Amino acid sequence: MRFHTRKWVKPEDLNPNGTLFGGRLLQWVDEEAALYAIVQLENKKVVTKYISDINFSEASHQGDIVEIGIDVVKFGRSSLVLRCEVRNMMTRKTILTIENVTMVNLGDDGKPAPHGKTEKEYVRNRLAKDA
Amino acid sequence: MRFHTRKWVKPEDLNPNGTLFGGRLLQWVDEEAALYAIVQLENKKVVTKYISDINFSEASHQGDIVEIGIDVVKFGRSSLVLRCEVRNMMTRKTILTIENVTMVNLGDDGKPAPHGKTEKEYVRNRLAKDA
Amino acid sequence: MRFHTRKWVKPEDLNPNGTLFGGRLLQWVDEEAALYAIVQLENKKVVTKYISDINFSEASHQGDIVEIGIDVVKFGRSSLVLRCEVRNMMTRKTILTIENVTMVNLGDDGKPAPHGKTEKEYVRNRLAKDA
Amino acid sequence: MRFHTRKWVKPEDLNPNGTLFGGRLLQWVDEEAALYAIVQLENKKVVTKYISDINFSEASHQGDIVEIGIDVVKFGRSSLVLRCEVRNMMTRKTILTIENVTMVNLGDDGKPAPHGKTEKEYVRNRLAKDA
Amino acid sequence: MRFHTRKWVKPEDLNPNGTLFGGRLLQWVDEEAALYAIVQLENKKVVTKYISDINFSEASHQGDIVEIGIDVVKFGRSSLVLRCEVRNMMTRKTILTIENVTMVNLGDDGKPAPHGKTEKEYVRNRLAKDA
Amino acid sequence: MRFHTRKWVKPEDLNPNGTLFGGRLLQWVDEEAALYAIVQLENKKVVTKYISDINFSEASHQGDIVEIGIDVVKFGRSSLVLRCEVRNMMTRKTILTIENVTMVNLGDDGKPAPHGKTEKEYVRNRLAKDA
Repeated sequence: MRFHTRKWVKPEDLNPNGTLFGGRLLQWVDEEAALYAIVQLENKKVVTKYISDINFSEASHQGDIVEIGIDVVKFGRSSLVLRCEVRNMMTRKTILTIENVTMVNLGDDGKPAPHGKTEKEYVRNRLAKDA
Repeated sequence: MRFHTRKWVKPEDLNPNGTLFGGRLLQWVDEEAALYAIVQLENKKVVTKYISDINFSEASHQGDIVEIGIDVVKFGRSSLVLRCEVRNMMTRKTILTIENVTMVNLGDDGKPAPHGKTEKEYVRNRLAKDA
Repeated sequence: MRFHTRKWVKPEDLNPNGTLFGGRLLQWVDEEAALYAIVQLENKKVVTKYISDINFSEASHQGDIVEIGIDVVKFGRSSLVLRCEVRNMMTRKTILTIENVTMVNLGDDGKPAPHGKTEKEYVRNRLAKDA
Repeated sequence: MRFHTRKWVKPEDLNPNGTLFGGRLLQWVDEEAALYAIVQLENKKVVTKYISDINFSEASHQGDIVEIGIDVVKFGRSSLVLRCEVRNMMTRKTILTIENVTMVNLGDDGKPAPHGKTEKEYVRNRLAKDA
Repeated sequence: MRFHTRKWVKPEDLNPNGTLFGGRLLQWVDEEAALYAIVQLENKKVVTKYISDINFSEASHQGDIVEIGIDVVKFGRSSLVLRCEVRNMMTRKTILTIENVTMVNLGDDGKPAPHGKTEKEYVRNRLAKDA
Repeated sequence: MRFHTRKWVKPEDLNPNGTLFGGRLLQWVDEEAALYAIVQLENKKVVTKYISDINFSEASHQGDIVEIGIDVVKFGRSSLVLRCEVRNMMTRKTILTIENVTMVNLGDDGKPAPHGKTEKEYVRNRLAKDA
């Protein structure tokens, strides 16, 4: 799994107990899954359809740096199944893991549509091929 | 299940496809579960420990009004298990359902602590008893 | 008066003195009045026209849960007059009261338009009638 | 009346009808009144106590520039009464007017405290006197 | 240089060290430059093209009031060069200075377009002339 | 240069012209530089001291995915000089480049303090060494 996006836990991200608000964390995860799917499927019209159960294993605090990792579990016909992990960047302790985030590829009519992808692609290779 | 909190879907809540951003919805759900637990457990130090899987059944759009319902599934020793549903207030169509949101009661040391509660209470009854 | 929407006072809602920022509270009240009017008038094009004077009777603090109550004062021809109260959910102490929030129903041209409503309706009854 | 703070109406400030959200406008007004009072009373512990009735006379749209004017109505013993006007900077049309925003000066104990001020002061004069 | 817009440093504006987040400050500066250019050029389609180097000379803290000053350096053919200073309103200490913020005037096609302006104008004079 | 953090351009990030608000972009860059410095210097008390001039070469639009790259230019005694580039993730077109972002390491007294670092380190190596 590759970890890309990093977040700095700021006062605006805290719950009233002074730890990272769980809802904010889920917002970060959902955004990361969405943009990962957009890049893989080369389609901006992608929505979250399903998220498997979530264990919050470790609290985060103000000033912590967390990083979000995404990996592909499976390419479906109109879907893409991702696995997600969030961890503390300095200690590498896992903050949460989600085994299945299912993103769905939409057509222009807003309905699920086949995406034609079967494996992970890298943008640099796509661009090289186009050149 | 009683539905209390309502949200008006505003431009700042949309994803780039113009529908309600899933991450924002999860943030709303987590906040509602947390405040519900705080009221039931009469303790402000409460954290989200577990969220069971989530099906996004229906999209929401700008200007929609959504309402969030919470009910108690079970009082544990230091935990409280909630069920959550979000629906479109005008059409009553379900937007998402979560069968198990587990909140944990923390002591002053930040560790799980027994909360001593065994059934749902209403604030008006508590206040009447104190009077 | 029925209280529905609840808010958890988070760090991002505080003024620099550490109490709930009055402007944030007014934003919550205005949103609640708007969505209440939309539901009653069955029209999404509704604007705030007038707010009567506001007494801030009680401060709120981080971690408090506040709830917002709305009731109908009067159905005008193209307007709807609401009464609003915000209170601390745990202590039931009133935080602010506004006797008159006037919402105006707009037509497609953005001008005030008759809404044809004369009394409070419940969504469940509307849906039952349509079935 | 002097107009100082200006705001650019951005997508995040709109209600779902595409006009400036009234709640956002009230938030801007409350912040401006608070900081004006802090400067005049030379005390950071200042709270909004009362806001007289508000007429929304004109809608604003995305991309508009609005400016906020504040003037002193009266110096009380522990209070400061302000008058506020918001207008469109390009057309000078009034968006809203509030005749009385009462700010209260707090002591270290969080209770109203005399502020000792009786007239409007300019920071440049204060600094000149100190020099 | 005239200072107009004022900001009250709130918890949501802080970095995890408890001082004003530099990124928030840059956001405020960019917004002020943009709206200043819109007013001068009488065109809402204006973008930031260049910002010269920035020295952060002084930290700000929660509850501080900062004010933002803008002045015109030069009217180009399709550009407007501004100078910007941010200072603490109470102490007048400079927080940052930027010697050159270049805004570009866009035509309906989104490309740079001549703006026809050669000197600073005041809205009140424009309105007087139109009357 | 390694690109890590990715952002999905959402309605809340747009200026009123419908392109990515420059101020939001600067906020993202400053946060990325800060967290990069915190990780390298192993100190949470780090502030932005200087940002060299910024060319906005390309506009971004709603739904675009941008990625932020950071590299080390130089380790000073109490400072760390970074280079930053933001690009569109799908097209690899550069959105902005900043040659020098100088972060300063602070001691417990809030004053610049030597950080003792002379070269880039990877967290995985640090953790391996500690094990």
